[in-house]
Amino acid sequence: MGMENFKQFLAALVTAVSVGFLSIFFVLRWVLYFKEGLAWDGGLAEFNWHPVLTVTGFIFLQGIAIVVYRLPWTWKCSKLMMKFIHAGLHMLAFIFVVISLVAVFDFHNSQNIPNMYSLHSWVGLSAVIQYTVQLVLGVCIYLIPLTPTYMRAAFMPLHVYSGLFIFATAVATALMGITEKLIFGLKDPKYKDSPPEATFVNVLGVLIVFFGAIIIWIVTRSSWKRPSESVLLSLSTNREGSDGTRAGISLSQQPDCVDPEGSREARRRSGKLEDSGQVN
Amino acid sequence: MGMENFKQFLAALVTAVSVGFLSIFFVLRWVLYFKEGLAWDGGLAEFNWHPVLTVTGFIFLQGIAIVVYRLPWTWKCSKLMMKFIHAGLHMLAFIFVVISLVAVFDFHNSQNIPNMYSLHSWVGLSAVIQYTVQLVLGVCIYLIPLTPTYMRAAFMPLHVYSGLFIFATAVATALMGITEKLIFGLKDPKYKDSPPEATFVNVLGVLIVFFGAIIIWIVTRSSWKRPSESVLLSLSTNREGSDGTRAGISLSQQPDCVDPEGSREARRRSGKLEDSGQVN
Repeated sequence: MGMENFKQFLAALVTAVSVGFLSIFFVLRWVLYFKEGLAWDGGLAEFNWHPVLTVTGFIFLQGIAIVVYRLPWTWKCSKLMMKFIHAGLHMLAFIFVVISLVAVFDFHNSQNIPNMYSLHSWVGLSAVIQYTVQLVLGVCIYLIPLTPTYMRAAFMPLHVYSGLFIFATAVATALMGITEKLIFGLKDPKYKDSPPEATFVNVLGVLIVFFGAIIIWIVTRSSWKRPSESVLLSLSTNREGSDGTRAGISLSQQPDCVDPEGSREARRRSGKLEDSGQVN
Repeated sequence: MGMENFKQFLAALVTAVSVGFLSIFFVLRWVLYFKEGLAWDGGLAEFNWHPVLTVTGFIFLQGIAIVVYRLPWTWKCSKLMMKFIHAGLHMLAFIFVVISLVAVFDFHNSQNIPNMYSLHSWVGLSAVIQYTVQLVLGVCIYLIPLTPTYMRAAFMPLHVYSGLFIFATAVATALMGITEKLIFGLKDPKYKDSPPEATFVNVLGVLIVFFGAIIIWIVTRSSWKRPSESVLLSLSTNREGSDGTRAGISLSQQPDCVDPEGSREARRRSGKLEDSGQVN
């Protein structure tokens, strides 16, 4: 990755992370300043965990998990370690989402509000179910060492497409959730009278769309992709990489993290290459 | 494109078109059977043009316009003709969207409902503004013959990304619009009581998401892309195509529609190659 390309990547990443943090700040300020705060009491303060945890988990953490392979300073780390970070972040996001669902179902049941009547709930729950399937299949196919390489390669386009589809669906579901909550939550003045809360939370919605847009931009730039393992290995041994090969789904044969500038001899002496320190 | 690959493409396309038509049927049945029908009277029947025209234009027509280069039976047509069809469908979609906006602003003004207060309106209007910019830039860069090839190539990643972003945003905006309308439009029974209209229109929302998902799937499969002009030209002259080249942004040097199986000699005799019948 050239310096100009690296700078562009960094600008996109810093923007994404900043907008992501700003979204989390906005959702926290919404529930803590404009609404009833956070509690686990079967009331509105319990419901409030729902937007907080979905924005933090299903939007922010999922988005970061998606782009984690793109960070150039991780390219010296083994593919397997990066897979664990990718899966770990998604797992954390999944836990956030599950708790956020418990909060809203518990709130509905306490208040005798029906569950699963809205389009928000239909699309949102199906996104969570797809996320579960994606996690299980992802672990089985890409982390269990027994899965043959051809199967990993064959499943990769679907893994990538489903991942981005679920992420985009999470963004769309958040927008529906915001719409619902502003209509139900604002009575006098109403949503249509544009009180400060309405404008503030509309901005949260725009921030979420912007975050989603940058994540998808980052992940779909081919020049920002992690080079295939063979290229990385040759770079790390000071041989010239073959730029054309971007298969991407080879088993890692690298130590956890190596200095791409270091020579094979140096690492051979340190015993790292043989005892490659892989996690599995 | 092999036969198996072609069958898979056809299955995806038929599904997309079927789901798209079903969405249009659903939105028509919604306004004609469940709601006040269609009219231009400043009342709810005028508002109803808004969902009908956005689903038909901003969802269905935009989606079809996006995948139109992928239809293998058009690969014998000149790239320029396909560009006109692509731009024409987007232009038609744009006209639908503009009328749909006039309907909702006119309805709001007649009923003294504020404009532009909701997240739906913020995200939706910015999608329409981006669509306008995309259309103007697209025509200037890809249809005006003066634009240099390097500029066409440099702008292509942004053109593709923006196009898919606007399309996905249109889908998300439709979901917010459905959410708003079901909450505002259903009073006794309410949305949360799940009357038939609520369930029916939730299904419309799911159909729209499904349509969007298939369109994005179709357009992101690299093996379903229209081959680059050089490959097509060599195929049409019975020489072997160089599979590796997929630059895609070369000026068309073909007749409007040629038979890829036909020999150069046959077409030379018919005078088509010289008098290439291009639209510009």
